[in-house]
This record gives sequence, C-alpha cells and structure tokens, in this order.
Amino acid sequence: MIARQSTAFAPATVANLGPGFDVLGLALEDVGDVVRIDVDPGGKPGVIIASITGDGGRLPKDPYLNTAGYAVVQLLQERGLEGLLSVKLDLRKGLPLGSGMGSSAASAVAAIVAFEGIFEEQLPQEVLLRIACECERAACGTPHADNVAPSLLGGLVLWSPLMNKPVSIPVPEDLWCAVVHPEMEIRTEDARRVLPEHISMTSAIETAGQLGSLISGMYESDYERISAALVDPLVTPFRAKLIPGFEKMMQSISKVGAIGGGISGSGPSVFALGSYEESVRKAALTIQRCFLEENVQSDQLISKVSAKGARLIENI
Amino acid sequence: MIARQSTAFAPATVANLGPGFDVLGLALEDVGDVVRIDVDPGGKPGVIIASITGDGGRLPKDPYLNTAGYAVVQLLQERGLEGLLSVKLDLRKGLPLGSGMGSSAASAVAAIVAFEGIFEEQLPQEVLLRIACECERAACGTPHADNVAPSLLGGLVLWSPLMNKPVSIPVPEDLWCAVVHPEMEIRTEDARRVLPEHISMTSAIETAGQLGSLISGMYESDYERISAALVDPLVTPFRAKLIPGFEKMMQSISKVGAIGGGISGSGPSVFALGSYEESVRKAALTIQRCFLEENVQSDQLISKVSAKGARLIENI
Repeated sequence: MIARQSTAFAPATVANLGPGFDVLGLALEDVGDVVRIDVDPGGKPGVIIASITGDGGRLPKDPYLNTAGYAVVQLLQERGLEGLLSVKLDLRKGLPLGSGMGSSAASAVAAIVAFEGIFEEQLPQEVLLRIACECERAACGTPHADNVAPSLLGGLVLWSPLMNKPVSIPVPEDLWCAVVHPEMEIRTEDARRVLPEHISMTSAIETAGQLGSLISGMYESDYERISAALVDPLVTPFRAKLIPGFEKMMQSISKVGAIGGGISGSGPSVFALGSYEESVRKAALTIQRCFLEENVQSDQLISKVSAKGARLIENI
Repeated sequence: MIARQSTAFAPATVANLGPGFDVLGLALEDVGDVVRIDVDPGGKPGVIIASITGDGGRLPKDPYLNTAGYAVVQLLQERGLEGLLSVKLDLRKGLPLGSGMGSSAASAVAAIVAFEGIFEEQLPQEVLLRIACECERAACGTPHADNVAPSLLGGLVLWSPLMNKPVSIPVPEDLWCAVVHPEMEIRTEDARRVLPEHISMTSAIETAGQLGSLISGMYESDYERISAALVDPLVTPFRAKLIPGFEKMMQSISKVGAIGGGISGSGPSVFALGSYEESVRKAALTIQRCFLEENVQSDQLISKVSAKGARLIENI
C-alpha cells in the first residue's frame, strides 16, 4: 500500500451509441462521479459506505447493493484481501440516477480507480473491466461493458461481446456531444423489456452495416458518414416510444447543425453529436423545447467527447 | 462515342466477409471475367451475346437472363439509347459459376465498365452500382452490393443498406487471401434458404460488435483484432453444415499461420486471410486436404487483396 486515502473521478458516458446497442459508448468530460476511499489499518475488516451525496437519498449503502461498494468487495477478493482490510467509501454522485448516462458505471469505475490508487501496482485493465462489468450485472441484470469501458478508458470504446475486450476508436478532434436529461425515469430493466428477443435478419444486417460505417466514419472524421450511420434500426424504433417527442427531436436537431443523435444508454436522456460547440448547444435547446412541448422539464449538458477516462484525483 | 470496341476486366470477390453478411466484400487480383463490347452503328438495334467461353455452356445467351447482357440493357435505357444502338457482347468467364466468388457480379461489372468505355463521359458511379445491383437481383433474387461494389471499386468495400452507398475500407498492405473452390455447387438461393428469417437479439448485437471490430482492425492493421473479428455468429453457423469439413478447416488454418477464414460469398468456396503469402498458401492446402477427406476435389487461388477494381483493358 502506498496510500491510505485515495480519491478518483469517473466520467458519465453515452452508451448504445447509434447502432451500437450494448457495444459502443463514449465518455463525456468533467461530468461524473467521485469516490473517496479510506483504508484504516487498525479498523474492523470490511467495506462500509460512509456517505453518499447527490443521489437524493436513493442509493443503498449496503456495499453489495451499491455498484461502488460492490466494486471494492470484488477488488478485495481479487487481491486476496477479503476479511483483512477495513475500507470506507464516500461517494459523490455528479450525474442523475437512471438517466441513461451511465450512472451505475461511473460509480463503479470511480471506486475501482480510487481503490487501486491505494496500491503501488494496479491490477491489469482486463481485471478492472471484468469487475466493473460484474457491477453492471448486479445493478441492471446484464454485464454489458458499453458504459464501464469508456468511463474507465475515455474516448469512444467498442466492445465486441465475442472478443470480450475493449477497442478504443479514434474520434474527430472537434466532436461535441450534448445530453439532455428529462425529469422522468426509465429503469434499465424496463427499457430492456420493450425489446423483442428476436428480430429480423434484415434488421441485423442493417445494424451491422450501420455500425461498421459509423466506425469507419470516426476513423476518417467523415461527418456525413457519421451522420448517416448514427441511425439505429435495431433498438431505437422500440425505445423511441418511451421518450415523448423523440421523433421530432431527431428531425429538428439536424436543422440546427447537429450531425445526429439518439437515445443515450437506455434513456430517457437524449444525445446529439456535432462538429462544433454551437451546433450541440442549439441541438440541446431544441431537444429541451421538444420535451417542454410534452410537458417534461429537462437539464442539459454540453461536452467534448473526452479522451480522458477515469482518473485518480489524489492519493495520500 | 469515342470507341466502337471496348474490353474490360472485373475481378472475382469474396463477399459476406466474416461477420459482414450482405455488407462487406473484397476484390481479388487478376482472377475475374472479361467482357468485350462491339457497337455497330449500322447494325440492327438491340443487345446480342455473341459468345460465352469458360462457362461450360451453362450460361444463358438471352441478354435479359445473363447479368452481363442485362447490365448493357439497363445502361442503354439509362442513356436513352434503347432501340438505337446495336451492341454485341463477348463474355470470357475467368471464374467458376456458383462458386461464391461473385461470378454473376464480375460479369455484370465487366460489361458495365466495357460498355462505359465506349463513351467519352461515364455515368456516375452510383448509377453504375445501382445497375450492377439490379443485375444481382435478377441473378439471385436480392440486390445486395457486397460483390458488385468491391468488383467495381477494388479493395475492401462496406455497404450499409441504410446508407445505400459504398464505403472503401483500407486494408493492411500485406493482406493476402486464399480461396478454395470445391467441386460442388451451392446455389445462392439455396444458401439463403437455410437462413432463418429471425434471429436472436444477442446474435445481432454480437454480429454488429464483430463487424465494428473488423473494420477497426483493418484501419489499424491489427491482425490479432482482425483474426478475432472474422468469427461470424450470424450466418456461418447455419451455412457451415452445407460445406463438408468446414469446422475442421477453420481450426486447422490458424495452426498454419492464417489469420482466419470463412465461407466465401454464399459458398461453397472457403477463404482464408493471412498477413504473408506463405500463410495463405499453407491455409489453402489445409482447406483442400479437409475437402479431400470428405471426398471433394477442389481448386485454389492465392491473391493479394487487390486495391484495383474493374478496369478497361482497351477501347478502340
């Protein structure tokens, strides 16, 4: 151990990006969760969540039911320190729960990076990602990595389930993202329930073609290609009806210069991408106006797509 | 018109590349079809297929039933020359019919490029591709572009059905391809019949993840990623049973240094990719040995992935 106290930040993420349901997500800048870990060498072994702020009192403090706590429980097991170390967590939520911005993932990843900051040598990245995925499984039933991978690594990250490791995809230098979070909630489990178990072969082919084109557009900074490739035929047609005004939002944001958009994560947040800041600012206002027409209040955040992922703030 | 006689070559292609069913194909070097067009200003208007060689007498000479002839019929319509021009075609097949190497596509594309060689100004690429796709529809029921696009453009080409235009994907400079063609035939229609109309959401997600990874691997010349991403969960599990010994082939080729492989087009040909010539030569022999164990004779061809697509040989 090189520190007794360690604090880390992990960013919010937009997962299910366009046609990349369960496989593609990107990290936002500056918005996210902060976890502080305190290790007490003389304390009673175990994991305690001492405080949670910014959650409106809604998150459980049982470390097995909280993704930040559960991450630390697993890391202790992984390092063979279970029953040996006394760990106290303080979690500061910087993004809303159930918003579709990777709230549970950001908590888990911040806890992982903070805990690892206690030690001189970090566990391998694939172990950290596996543990983060396990937290996602505990939180929402499936161990998908499209939030935790970009939150940990930063940037745009593709995760092919059959390869089971992250692939960082370059993004155009000027890629901006707006996320509008309406004052309504869709639970991840509910968002999954509206999806059929089987889909047409045609839809699968279209989805793969779109995702391939989106990846190619990112490598080539080809905004026209990115724009066309953001259209998702797989999941969005089913989930759009959970979000009032969604169709109109998508039609309207292109008129104000955004490249395209979609549902952030499992919703209800809606994202827009743009090649300059003003375009996503206007897109965010447009989306908010559409929500208002449906009598839904909302917040917005504007961010460059962050090349930076989770990071240690300090360890002392 | 700048010529009365024009001859063009269009290469064989490997379509349905890995997880890219109906959306991804690559062009081979030197193997393909040659079409010669003769325009007789004083002749009787219409399209005549004067000769076909290399097909064992199996292809129809009715221009409406032959992809080369049908391509010219459509080009005459497109140029408003229907009923005005007398066109004679000679088709030299350089690749076997029903082999899964884009035989019908190569004939159509060679005819298109030859016919266009007659004129000073060529029709736009998207028109040529649309016509070539129509030929595919006439030949095998669906207007998929994953053979015609790489045959026309060369290299590796992605075709997202929702974008409806080709995207050229760079390939590693040393990417080699072996194709083994067994002495058996699978008709494209039959190969489509074994596919279910609906598949699991999981399979669709896996497929998109694999295709995205494959595209990314190509941009980064990352052979390890390409290797893992070539595994196709969508179509290959159904079609593999049409090809005797297929599973063993896939296991064996990686042992001799190939990156990976799969079914070429709708089969029965099997392809292997490698990062150096020797690896695909050995892979081809390995695949041929597996076919032999199943009492199937086969031919092989070895080629770099060609950056060149169809080309005019001469116009006079």
